[in-house]
Amino acid sequence: MDQKGYRRGSFQSSTSDEDMLEIAGASLDFPMADDDPPLDREMGGFSSYNGGEMNGTSKMMDFLEEPLPGVGTYEDFNTIDWVREKSRDRDRHREITSRSKESTWALIHSVSDAFSGWLLMLFIGLLAGSLAGLIDISAHWMTDLKEGVCLAGFWFNHEHCCWKSNTTFTDRDKCPEWKSWSQLIIGHGEGAFAYILNYLMYVIWALLFSLLAVLLVKGFAPYACGSGIPEIKTILSGFIIRGYLGKWTLIIKTITLVLAVSSGLSLGKEGPLVHVACCCGNTLCHLFTKYRKNEAKRREVLSAAAAAGVSVAFGAPIGGVLFSLEEVSYYFPLKTLWRSFFAALVAAFTLRSINPFGNSRLVLFYVEFHMPWHLLELVPFVLLGIFGGLWGAFFIRSNIAWCRRRKTTKLGKYPVLEVFVVTAITAILAFPNEYTRMSTSELISELFNDCGILDSSKLCEYVNDFNSTKGDDLPDRAAGPGVYTAMWQLALALVMKVFITIFTFGMKVPSGLFIPSMAVGAIAGRLLGVAMEQLAFYHHDWVIFSGWCSQGADCITPGLYAMVGAAACLGGVTRMTVSLVVIMFELTGGLEYIVPLMAAAMTSKWMADAIGREGIYDAHIRLNGYPFLEAKEEFSHKTLAMDVMRPRRNDPPLTVITQDSMTVEDVETIINETTYSGYPVVVSRESQRLVGFVLRRDLIISIENARKKQDGIVSTSIIYFTDHSPPLPPSFPSMLKLRSILDLSPFTVTDQTPMEIVVDIFRKLGLRQCLVTHNGKLLGIITKKDVLKHIAQLANQDPDSILFN
Amino acid sequence: MDQKGYRRGSFQSSTSDEDMLEIAGASLDFPMADDDPPLDREMGGFSSYNGGEMNGTSKMMDFLEEPLPGVGTYEDFNTIDWVREKSRDRDRHREITSRSKESTWALIHSVSDAFSGWLLMLFIGLLAGSLAGLIDISAHWMTDLKEGVCLAGFWFNHEHCCWKSNTTFTDRDKCPEWKSWSQLIIGHGEGAFAYILNYLMYVIWALLFSLLAVLLVKGFAPYACGSGIPEIKTILSGFIIRGYLGKWTLIIKTITLVLAVSSGLSLGKEGPLVHVACCCGNTLCHLFTKYRKNEAKRREVLSAAAAAGVSVAFGAPIGGVLFSLEEVSYYFPLKTLWRSFFAALVAAFTLRSINPFGNSRLVLFYVEFHMPWHLLELVPFVLLGIFGGLWGAFFIRSNIAWCRRRKTTKLGKYPVLEVFVVTAITAILAFPNEYTRMSTSELISELFNDCGILDSSKLCEYVNDFNSTKGDDLPDRAAGPGVYTAMWQLALALVMKVFITIFTFGMKVPSGLFIPSMAVGAIAGRLLGVAMEQLAFYHHDWVIFSGWCSQGADCITPGLYAMVGAAACLGGVTRMTVSLVVIMFELTGGLEYIVPLMAAAMTSKWMADAIGREGIYDAHIRLNGYPFLEAKEEFSHKTLAMDVMRPRRNDPPLTVITQDSMTVEDVETIINETTYSGYPVVVSRESQRLVGFVLRRDLIISIENARKKQDGIVSTSIIYFTDHSPPLPPSFPSMLKLRSILDLSPFTVTDQTPMEIVVDIFRKLGLRQCLVTHNGKLLGIITKKDVLKHIAQLANQDPDSILFN
Repeated sequence: MDQKGYRRGSFQSSTSDEDMLEIAGASLDFPMADDDPPLDREMGGFSSYNGGEMNGTSKMMDFLEEPLPGVGTYEDFNTIDWVREKSRDRDRHREITSRSKESTWALIHSVSDAFSGWLLMLFIGLLAGSLAGLIDISAHWMTDLKEGVCLAGFWFNHEHCCWKSNTTFTDRDKCPEWKSWSQLIIGHGEGAFAYILNYLMYVIWALLFSLLAVLLVKGFAPYACGSGIPEIKTILSGFIIRGYLGKWTLIIKTITLVLAVSSGLSLGKEGPLVHVACCCGNTLCHLFTKYRKNEAKRREVLSAAAAAGVSVAFGAPIGGVLFSLEEVSYYFPLKTLWRSFFAALVAAFTLRSINPFGNSRLVLFYVEFHMPWHLLELVPFVLLGIFGGLWGAFFIRSNIAWCRRRKTTKLGKYPVLEVFVVTAITAILAFPNEYTRMSTSELISELFNDCGILDSSKLCEYVNDFNSTKGDDLPDRAAGPGVYTAMWQLALALVMKVFITIFTFGMKVPSGLFIPSMAVGAIAGRLLGVAMEQLAFYHHDWVIFSGWCSQGADCITPGLYAMVGAAACLGGVTRMTVSLVVIMFELTGGLEYIVPLMAAAMTSKWMADAIGREGIYDAHIRLNGYPFLEAKEEFSHKTLAMDVMRPRRNDPPLTVITQDSMTVEDVETIINETTYSGYPVVVSRESQRLVGFVLRRDLIISIENARKKQDGIVSTSIIYFTDHSPPLPPSFPSMLKLRSILDLSPFTVTDQTPMEIVVDIFRKLGLRQCLVTHNGKLLGIITKKDVLKHIAQLANQDPDSILFN
Repeated sequence: MDQKGYRRGSFQSSTSDEDMLEIAGASLDFPMADDDPPLDREMGGFSSYNGGEMNGTSKMMDFLEEPLPGVGTYEDFNTIDWVREKSRDRDRHREITSRSKESTWALIHSVSDAFSGWLLMLFIGLLAGSLAGLIDISAHWMTDLKEGVCLAGFWFNHEHCCWKSNTTFTDRDKCPEWKSWSQLIIGHGEGAFAYILNYLMYVIWALLFSLLAVLLVKGFAPYACGSGIPEIKTILSGFIIRGYLGKWTLIIKTITLVLAVSSGLSLGKEGPLVHVACCCGNTLCHLFTKYRKNEAKRREVLSAAAAAGVSVAFGAPIGGVLFSLEEVSYYFPLKTLWRSFFAALVAAFTLRSINPFGNSRLVLFYVEFHMPWHLLELVPFVLLGIFGGLWGAFFIRSNIAWCRRRKTTKLGKYPVLEVFVVTAITAILAFPNEYTRMSTSELISELFNDCGILDSSKLCEYVNDFNSTKGDDLPDRAAGPGVYTAMWQLALALVMKVFITIFTFGMKVPSGLFIPSMAVGAIAGRLLGVAMEQLAFYHHDWVIFSGWCSQGADCITPGLYAMVGAAACLGGVTRMTVSLVVIMFELTGGLEYIVPLMAAAMTSKWMADAIGREGIYDAHIRLNGYPFLEAKEEFSHKTLAMDVMRPRRNDPPLTVITQDSMTVEDVETIINETTYSGYPVVVSRESQRLVGFVLRRDLIISIENARKKQDGIVSTSIIYFTDHSPPLPPSFPSMLKLRSILDLSPFTVTDQTPMEIVVDIFRKLGLRQCLVTHNGKLLGIITKKDVLKHIAQLANQDPDSILFN
């Protein structure tokens, strides 16, 4: 694929306004990612709220009158007007409802329209669940492919291959059908040469997978890189990035996600799965007019799709819905809550029936603990919380610094090389350590696991004292040599994961953060857990253990520590709260363990917030300059609307259009001389009394159209925005009536309105702009970009970092 | 207590405007329920956003200037202005933050302020959990008291009494220490006379409990009646009902709830527990200035308290949070989500450590199912959903009709008699049938229970075929005579519950709906479940059973049917969706059973919505005329702001105040001649250009204060709302500057704004009023009451049913 295509993909890491413009331009001749419907063509009759003829007798006129194509649509990299979109949907709904009384056909149409949302959710759930299953199975197989191949059939993964074989339980991992590469090539798996051969094959496969991934992303769907969550947040807040959720992105992201995960890079599939699910949602929206044509309705669907994505990523439907509500969505009406839940459930059950892990669980690391925890254990849990918070803050700072470096230096120009180098380093470092060699989710699964009597892994190599064992209840035991080796290996794995993840997240491959963060936390937690366990075993006479941890009792569950640590680190990085705890709760299934999880998550969030307010997604949004107005942060400054509005004190006055005295030429001059996306319409320049607001795009289209199709429209024709125009003498050129494109209900605030209220209005109503008045006279205008710039300025950031509008 | 006190309590069932006024008046001399803080006294310096001096040099002036007491507060039965409250809190927060840099003490204050929210949540959780435990234990004991007493100690309930005794497992219910009343009085429990004696004692205790409850409610805390959820919804939406969440209501509601539940009336404790938790929240708010003084902040706390209430009612912390989010709350910032979750968890764990049921579960009807369900079973589940929907719609209609009758006829004047009669009928009908004699939650617990091999209850009297039994896995068996008897009794219980609940809900005792609704559904579900089970047992060769239900297999779990039925009926009555499913999920703990629950809940909601849109709480809100603007319903009419605003076309023009030409006398005349709660301030009557908005209450207080304290203020003094007042000649009386009470940022919309957008603004921003302009000129005003009246009118309801403002 050409450089242009790639550049468009790199818009995520573009730095300057010019850069952005070029990218936005490039997107126009990049057909593959541009598969959003041509909204400009088909508009139906639903822009009537702009018109003022709604009241009185002419109410039905708008539906009969064909509106101009293009009026009321958006350009790429623009912000939508939620109020208008929602109004339009209500008009549509009203029309269908009123028509439904007329005929049976219309009634059926009305009912099917009402149920189309549910049907869409069903499809999204089915598709997202199937794709997740496909990804799980393929990634599992390809991860194993790095180490060897199954002779019974190359399409079996290691576990599956050995299931087929009839070996005993303990030898399950060493069945004859599964051949490591050295066994296959030189006939045996022993010795240094075989080791080196396996090492080499491991690295080669890893490089192959990751290079294939980066080339596919670069070549076919530049938007498929990264986790996608920052962009989805921005899109859901009302921004338009055409193709970001298109079907090409869907296909390429699904394939490259498998490749990236299999390559053994320190990344997870959870964030990208959300992106994949949103792509499914967006693509399936095309099936239903209701959602295809309305940007606001489509965002409701995307919120639900995000929930389905998390649902399949973690097997946590409730957690998914809460994640969508808490972290991703901007407008989340309660209707969406119910539908999201439905989509999340369908997705989870589709995945379960695919059963990718062969354990009828939705995730690899589902666990069940049996032992209660003691109140005193809250101390180590809080310590894990502090660790999680510190790690989160450290990771965000370093990762953002590295990503900024990538954007501003030459580094960003060689994404393939970057992926090659990082994969090579990761693979070379990972192979010798068995805990980094295995896939990260397997690692987490092993760390979460509570050691049973039969567990043969190194982590469970305790000194067994069968005299004190009663039934299934294992007492705390002394650690054997295997555990000590495992501790060292885990500590090394921890160091490696901590650093390599910083460089991995943000590369041009699909990469999620959840799994690496959880791995870091799980390792730290397990280390602490085993330490606590040994402490309790050898020093059960200490005061702190007295009363709850006598000799021969099972008082510490290291697996629980791993889980708490994972929650803490994930919380520190993403700043999730309720959804995090609920996801973890759904993994364990016991209400019992919510308290440790909550303690760790709270500590971690407080700790991380004390160092830096932003979570990783918000940090990336800011890094990329997306116009995202954070809904959670309170605006805490004491400025007024007049301090933010344009024009500023010494600027030229606001460009306005008068309602009945400007000619076509005047207006065209204004359009050509300015770049504003809309103009206020006033009664007269002298009075500055506001009549309405007209969008640049609508104005250009209408004038062009009138010049072409309407007789007698010349440059000297006067444009009327009034309801009734005066009778003109015949010598005058015919006039152009444009009231239908005028927004007669623009939002206004007074100049004395505190900015906190203005910000609140922008957030809650989803405005694009707001006019400022003083004693009834129009003074200026505030756009979303102005608000964002103002916030950036107050936070001592460069206001020009806000790129888009 | 006197009639006046009772009347105030009856405000819930007042019918006309005059009635309401009397009640509102009465509330003033009803000290006990009136324990909200005297907001009027202490205001701090936080009303600055009303002032226009915020910008420039005079920014700090407002904090130095002592504002007038009472300015910026609300009267009882009024609607709060969310924007103003939130602004005030932000000002407060800003001040604390800016001061925190000055001294260590201020820093500590700032930190403690930040953590006070969490501390408050902790207290609420602890208190709500403890009260719930207390209620559970007392109600359990008193319910058993109706049947007998424990000789080992009268304070033991039946179960506890027999635990102490050393009888064998099977005889646990018939231990010698537990004496029925007949055994105690006539020495034996056999024969007709003993039966009649027990019957009589049962009825007498029931009457005693319920009469005590109604008299306590009537005498001490009239607000303690009902479930409280409609009122809490209204309060959370921004209405003020002083004393509704006060400490007297808390105490009396806790006591009377125990009495009402013990009396055996067809009511539950779940709804009232939410009210109790909210009372805890409100009362504990007094500990923290931040929450005591700000109505908006306090509502955030109440949202969390509601979550804690449901959490302890059902042992479902996540479900509680979702219930609060979905059903109760109006403004639910994400910060509140996290805190609500915390409060809900603390409450649940407090309750668990009290362990009221002795099974370390939070509820009596926790269940664990083991058998999977088959896809074909969705048919009966959907049938249960339809039943639930029909029951919900039927119940709402009948109950509302009955409550309306109570309000409009003499019936409402004899609440004690009503309770007496209903209790007598309930008790007389309930005693002969063992399924109505036991407490409703015990009934539900038994219906949910899956029959084990050892279960000795009648419902589990199956014909055992021990040959086909393998281990714990019980196959479907033929029903024994006990099951058939139980079926008949359950059918009778169903009929009784269905009808008696209609008359019970709305009486002057604390009464929740959750448990009776669930009981109805559980009975219906169990009946259907057993029928299905027998069908499968006798006709396992039918096509529908082939493949999944062969002979000797356990294919139908009647307990699951009961649970699905309970969910369906609860859904039909309350129209809860996600929270319902999550609560049920937390009761079963298995993701497996979400799908049946969801299928039933969805069908039930669709069914019930098709008959009537409103849930029971919304119906009661409308019945009582509370000013509640439903956030979930879309406004679907095509009216404009000009159709709704006052003055209407033929009305006298809008009453306005000019900014610099009216005298004190002019303004006082306006205040006396009108009853509006606020007046727009304009530049001049001719231009009608809007300057700001001033509240009646603030105006009265300021003028009164000025007349008293400020020299030279006479009736001819001119009131200035301008920033700078002109120098006056000495002969003029001194002027009154009132800019500080002027809201310089009133919300305005144009007359052409569609009402759907206006309604959206009112909902999302929580406005009390909004001004209407046309081309920059002030035209009229829309208040929340106007909006509600307009909606009522469009729904063909009496617009005057909206009572309060």
